[in-house]
Amino acid sequence: MKIGVIGASHCNKKIARIAYQVGKEIARRKAILICGGLGGAMEEAARGAKKNKGLTIGILPGFSSSDANPYIDIPIVTGMDHGRNIIVVRSCDAIIAIGGREGTLSEIAFALKLRVPLIGIETWEIEGVIKAKDAKDAVRKAFRALRKEKKIVRCT
Amino acid sequence: MKIGVIGASHCNKKIARIAYQVGKEIARRKAILICGGLGGAMEEAARGAKKNKGLTIGILPGFSSSDANPYIDIPIVTGMDHGRNIIVVRSCDAIIAIGGREGTLSEIAFALKLRVPLIGIETWEIEGVIKAKDAKDAVRKAFRALRKEKKIVRCT
Amino acid sequence: MKIGVIGASHCNKKIARIAYQVGKEIARRKAILICGGLGGAMEEAARGAKKNKGLTIGILPGFSSSDANPYIDIPIVTGMDHGRNIIVVRSCDAIIAIGGREGTLSEIAFALKLRVPLIGIETWEIEGVIKAKDAKDAVRKAFRALRKEKKIVRCT
Amino acid sequence: MKIGVIGASHCNKKIARIAYQVGKEIARRKAILICGGLGGAMEEAARGAKKNKGLTIGILPGFSSSDANPYIDIPIVTGMDHGRNIIVVRSCDAIIAIGGREGTLSEIAFALKLRVPLIGIETWEIEGVIKAKDAKDAVRKAFRALRKEKKIVRCT
Repeated sequence: MKIGVIGASHCNKKIARIAYQVGKEIARRKAILICGGLGGAMEEAARGAKKNKGLTIGILPGFSSSDANPYIDIPIVTGMDHGRNIIVVRSCDAIIAIGGREGTLSEIAFALKLRVPLIGIETWEIEGVIKAKDAKDAVRKAFRALRKEKKIVRCT
Repeated sequence: MKIGVIGASHCNKKIARIAYQVGKEIARRKAILICGGLGGAMEEAARGAKKNKGLTIGILPGFSSSDANPYIDIPIVTGMDHGRNIIVVRSCDAIIAIGGREGTLSEIAFALKLRVPLIGIETWEIEGVIKAKDAKDAVRKAFRALRKEKKIVRCT
Repeated sequence: MKIGVIGASHCNKKIARIAYQVGKEIARRKAILICGGLGGAMEEAARGAKKNKGLTIGILPGFSSSDANPYIDIPIVTGMDHGRNIIVVRSCDAIIAIGGREGTLSEIAFALKLRVPLIGIETWEIEGVIKAKDAKDAVRKAFRALRKEKKIVRCT
Repeated sequence: MKIGVIGASHCNKKIARIAYQVGKEIARRKAILICGGLGGAMEEAARGAKKNKGLTIGILPGFSSSDANPYIDIPIVTGMDHGRNIIVVRSCDAIIAIGGREGTLSEIAFALKLRVPLIGIETWEIEGVIKAKDAKDAVRKAFRALRKEKKIVRCT
């Protein structure tokens, strides 16, 4: 199972703590963590996963694997800037949004469009986003959501 | 000047009428209309532009220029599905969102992130979206907004 | 009809002269010229087209329409770096390669893969590339080639 | 270290055998194998890696992780068709091309352009491709090549 964590590359302490806990829970459930590979919430989630023997993928916007935060095992280098956001979304079985701003909103939109289950903590409140009250609740809901059938949604 | 029109590929009569008027106003002001090239609000806006001697660009998600609606002069064929949304946003000097759902939300998010002025009619109400009351008002506001300095925002 | 011109962003005088002539011939035949929008062979071809009342599209790798050479009417801003090469190829009905190095080779490869007719002058000699002896010959061959049926080739 | 294996999605027995051996050697040297995730040479290389306890990444062109061959541990789902080829190249520290046709040629071109070391067996003979005589030789040369300094090459 691959669980995405999306959020801003700069974040406050509260969001950082939640992200760390989410990463930890993902690793404890033996799922792979996918994120955008940079700092802030992405880094904290990856750190939480690595401290708990998880595997982490970072789908990077830039041109070099050295852009990845230190807790990324496998950097995927897209060279597409924010264009990589949709690849993060497509590659996940469920996604947890923690905080975040416009970049995160683009990923939430893609997740809703492509019917990838999207759990949110302290983030945009949009119809279709499943709200969670804390990190454990978010990961629990992510795992519950991904059991449902996956559909492919094409742009028409 | 290149003005984008974003909205869903299926839309009701009210949205269709607004989109047509927006396309018409864009053409009358000699701007180029950029859209996603498909049906619904995109098609109505392109039709409004073409009936008024405008030039229309469609940035298509699929693999063939024949996917474009009949009012597109220049189809750009990306083969990237919804991944093309960010190219629509990057290519515009200002954008008008008319109605729309998740796909449109992803474009609104990118426009806010990349600081492309975004005017909205009957669409997502999000901080940073400049609200317009009708088609003429939207095009007027789009032209006023694009006079401001453009900044390049990189993913960091 | 949309004819692509591909080649390096820096080129010698001979290639420049050929590119200019190719752009001129494309415009005289009322076709739209598509290129990567930058300097060298792309710029000379666009200049040849503009001096002959053609319409020019530049599919740019970077983040700003100001990257386009001065002879581009419509810059498409991808933010995908070399990732935009495949969009150039997909958007053309036929392509003329003039000189060029590795970037051009990637476009030739995509053209052969996607069955977009590819005419070459002073460029990579690869099976499937239709050789032309000069600019007029190249444009003539490009127009002849595009009359054939287009097929969509998916990645499988 | 991440070693890419590129080649066609359909291949003959000789190429299959080489690809399997290459995957095996990559795994034995504890490197991660990256490929396009589909059949043919990609599948054989991934199978060779998995039978030897390697880790395999497949950067898929389509819309579903179920497109991946059975030996892919981590499917990255791009939805960009052949547009994903450049992501394969960017994500590797060195690449081994085995056989292959136009798709592979596009990846070889990107590797040369972006200065990712490229070893070739029974593939396109192009200046800059380091020729190998067999699977072991290819992997040895890939590891030797990646020790050199990496440079970032931007599209200008």
